[in-house]
Amino acid sequence: MLHPHVSDHQTLAKPVAHKSNDLDKLFRMRTINETHDPKLTSWVASANDVQTDFAIQNLPYCCFAKGDGHDLRIGVGIGDQILDLTVCGESGLLPDWANEAVATRSLNALMGLGPDARMTLRRRISQLLSPACRDLQDHPAAAIALVAQSAVEFHLPCHVGDYSDFYASIHHATNVGGMMRPDNPLLPNYKYIPIGYHGRASSLIISGTEVRRPVGQLPPKAEGGKPDFGASQSLDYELEVGVFVAQGNALGDSIPLSRADDCLFGICLVNDWSARDIQRWEYQPLGPFLAKSFATTLSPWVVTFEALVPFRCPLEARPAGDPQPLPYLSHSADSKMGGLDLNLEVLIRTAQMRVANMAAQRVSSGNFRSMYWTLAQMLTHHASNGCNLQPGDLLASGTVSGPARESRGCLLELTWDGEPGKTVPATQRTPLQFPTGEQRTFLQDGDEVILRGWCEASGYRRIGVGECRGRIKPPKNPSK
Amino acid sequence: MLHPHVSDHQTLAKPVAHKSNDLDKLFRMRTINETHDPKLTSWVASANDVQTDFAIQNLPYCCFAKGDGHDLRIGVGIGDQILDLTVCGESGLLPDWANEAVATRSLNALMGLGPDARMTLRRRISQLLSPACRDLQDHPAAAIALVAQSAVEFHLPCHVGDYSDFYASIHHATNVGGMMRPDNPLLPNYKYIPIGYHGRASSLIISGTEVRRPVGQLPPKAEGGKPDFGASQSLDYELEVGVFVAQGNALGDSIPLSRADDCLFGICLVNDWSARDIQRWEYQPLGPFLAKSFATTLSPWVVTFEALVPFRCPLEARPAGDPQPLPYLSHSADSKMGGLDLNLEVLIRTAQMRVANMAAQRVSSGNFRSMYWTLAQMLTHHASNGCNLQPGDLLASGTVSGPARESRGCLLELTWDGEPGKTVPATQRTPLQFPTGEQRTFLQDGDEVILRGWCEASGYRRIGVGECRGRIKPPKNPSK
Repeated sequence: MLHPHVSDHQTLAKPVAHKSNDLDKLFRMRTINETHDPKLTSWVASANDVQTDFAIQNLPYCCFAKGDGHDLRIGVGIGDQILDLTVCGESGLLPDWANEAVATRSLNALMGLGPDARMTLRRRISQLLSPACRDLQDHPAAAIALVAQSAVEFHLPCHVGDYSDFYASIHHATNVGGMMRPDNPLLPNYKYIPIGYHGRASSLIISGTEVRRPVGQLPPKAEGGKPDFGASQSLDYELEVGVFVAQGNALGDSIPLSRADDCLFGICLVNDWSARDIQRWEYQPLGPFLAKSFATTLSPWVVTFEALVPFRCPLEARPAGDPQPLPYLSHSADSKMGGLDLNLEVLIRTAQMRVANMAAQRVSSGNFRSMYWTLAQMLTHHASNGCNLQPGDLLASGTVSGPARESRGCLLELTWDGEPGKTVPATQRTPLQFPTGEQRTFLQDGDEVILRGWCEASGYRRIGVGECRGRIKPPKNPSK
Repeated sequence: MLHPHVSDHQTLAKPVAHKSNDLDKLFRMRTINETHDPKLTSWVASANDVQTDFAIQNLPYCCFAKGDGHDLRIGVGIGDQILDLTVCGESGLLPDWANEAVATRSLNALMGLGPDARMTLRRRISQLLSPACRDLQDHPAAAIALVAQSAVEFHLPCHVGDYSDFYASIHHATNVGGMMRPDNPLLPNYKYIPIGYHGRASSLIISGTEVRRPVGQLPPKAEGGKPDFGASQSLDYELEVGVFVAQGNALGDSIPLSRADDCLFGICLVNDWSARDIQRWEYQPLGPFLAKSFATTLSPWVVTFEALVPFRCPLEARPAGDPQPLPYLSHSADSKMGGLDLNLEVLIRTAQMRVANMAAQRVSSGNFRSMYWTLAQMLTHHASNGCNLQPGDLLASGTVSGPARESRGCLLELTWDGEPGKTVPATQRTPLQFPTGEQRTFLQDGDEVILRGWCEASGYRRIGVGECRGRIKPPKNPSK
């Protein structure tokens, strides 16, 4: 059924996936150029604010409900509003082939559509929100197609079948390795393998959900002693960048690095909460388990790789003398831009700050270009053994730490292991000092951690990733 | 709609979950006694064969299709047949409250019903298959309610949201630890923590699916050298027992050990295929990743804890001097029966054996009672930090190895590390010798591995778990 207001976009054929010829490249380049034009404004006024995370050049996806108990819907962030894609689909405003994907309760189907379909959809959504296009503005659905972000409840953007967590900052690996193994901080495999491990998918939670301090086995106070069982005393955050898989691979197949970008859908912020005392006692020989699986917080917005194109960059150079990646992990000469010039910061707001009406305090800031491995390398490595990745799978980068102290992405590094009972000399510890007079080595109940990310580059509008928030609540069985 | 043949079972109220009073206990005990009566036979003749895995006392669940492209259905194994529960539900032969659960394409809903509902369903299915009950025998649906096992295609029994793998055999941990760390085989946490890690859910496959030999980074031949990239030369199997979670816990809650049995639905066999060379190079510091995630094979049958009641037993005693478990992991005096007297064996059939029409050769046999930790302890530990477990989640035991050489559950242990380039002196290696004249340290392409499990006890019918099979096919990119 065609509405009179709808232009001929519905007759656009669904682009064929994985076909990349010169015309496709031209189409992609043109779409990127046009949708990133800094002069482009939106008829949604708040999107034209220079400080917004969600200018019309961004168009991040999310999954939301219009209130408790309401149906989940798919949307796109624009200024302080959400464009309800479910309404757009029902109103015939999107290409027909996209209707099924936007009618579902999660982004998985949309993630699986393929890079050219994503590009076509980006172009169409950009058009719908541009002042020059009347398709939505004059449509009866316009009255319900926009919802204030402040009025909705965000949900996880998709069903995450599997969640894998990497360890791709060499600064983080060296700092933490040095605390755990002073004689052997960086293991010999680090410069060859994007080290990763499987995480827990069921305990992924959306930004804003409170995080209960976990209980668990705490390390014996003396060597050879018995562990205690109780609430973690060393609760930490980890600043990470997550990437959602777009199209994946069948079991037994792999994903060459040349095709990895097509298989990456978009990014979010991830807080990989970590109980350091539980972790130190449990992690050998099979890696972290309960120290992480109690909660992992995701930001609600998925900023697409199409939105991130202007901010691609090379990673910071491997130090002289470091080995080059093996061929299957070597970015080709014309795709060295595997890095991302993404600014990141962490803020903490304690209960005392809230009482004093004091803003959250920034405790670190860094940039995602300081990583040792790119997201594409992580994806290609992950699938190299034939492991099947699926649309909506989440890969997280591991803690993003830069070379400077102020760019360390977790408290363990920032305060240099203030964990009680640890062997790092107390004189080396550097607790955080807040204007309230409070000190922190690890998180206290009531502390809220806020992660933020954004891209800026000359000649382009700012692209924000939004915020990832979580506040610590007391443990359920503090004395057991 | 009531059929004339249907007795009043449909009016049975759905049992309330988590309520355990004396009447419930009596009901459970009576059901267990009646459904395990060794004199009980079935009108399905093949179920009365003394050697069958699937006597009427067993009643294991599965998920199957009547052929390629057909709908998935839920069934119960009986002799060499499957009772199609989807048909039974549609025909009004089951309690009304069970109809929704059996109408789905997987066992997840049934797993989430709770222990008393499971018990009621077991009683009813036992009744339907007993000669004395005419409800099914005289029903028009009888003609389509039984399907030959040989005619169906088995599928994974449920959607596994998360898969966790443990390390609960102290013999396995000591053997493998001794090869990796001769000076420090068993880490200090082992006797306190049921060590586990997150596995990959997407690459779980059903028995009979071929397994492609993985490629990956292989350890440098000399210390400080570069790794190679190629097909694994040290492909191994691991004999494990898997358990599916029944009802789980909400995020932030835990599952006390006293309630753990109620939250365990049933077991299957698991082959946790492992590429030892990839594992040795990648596993530090975050644990195994690509060495395992290329494939994990499950047997199709889920043998319920109700079927296993007569075979519960204490674990073999902790050696004198070993610490007792912390209180949250201590089985109470009347529930010491956390172990399972489950016989296990591994067979290998090489391509040459198939050509010679020679049967598979048994390479090891052991018993699940030799574990150091019970399945209930693994579950309770897993949820102790508030990690939410969900119906259908899979916990695997880790390699089941006993104290004797012939009870070692993987080739790494059986052949004592025949991995090329490893430091174990060649004189200590003990390759398998087959009647074909073939030798094996690790698996070759074309080898099929078969796991089997069964329970036997005086006064009870044999309860079989069935088989878990997988054959190795060559790697896709052998030279890359």
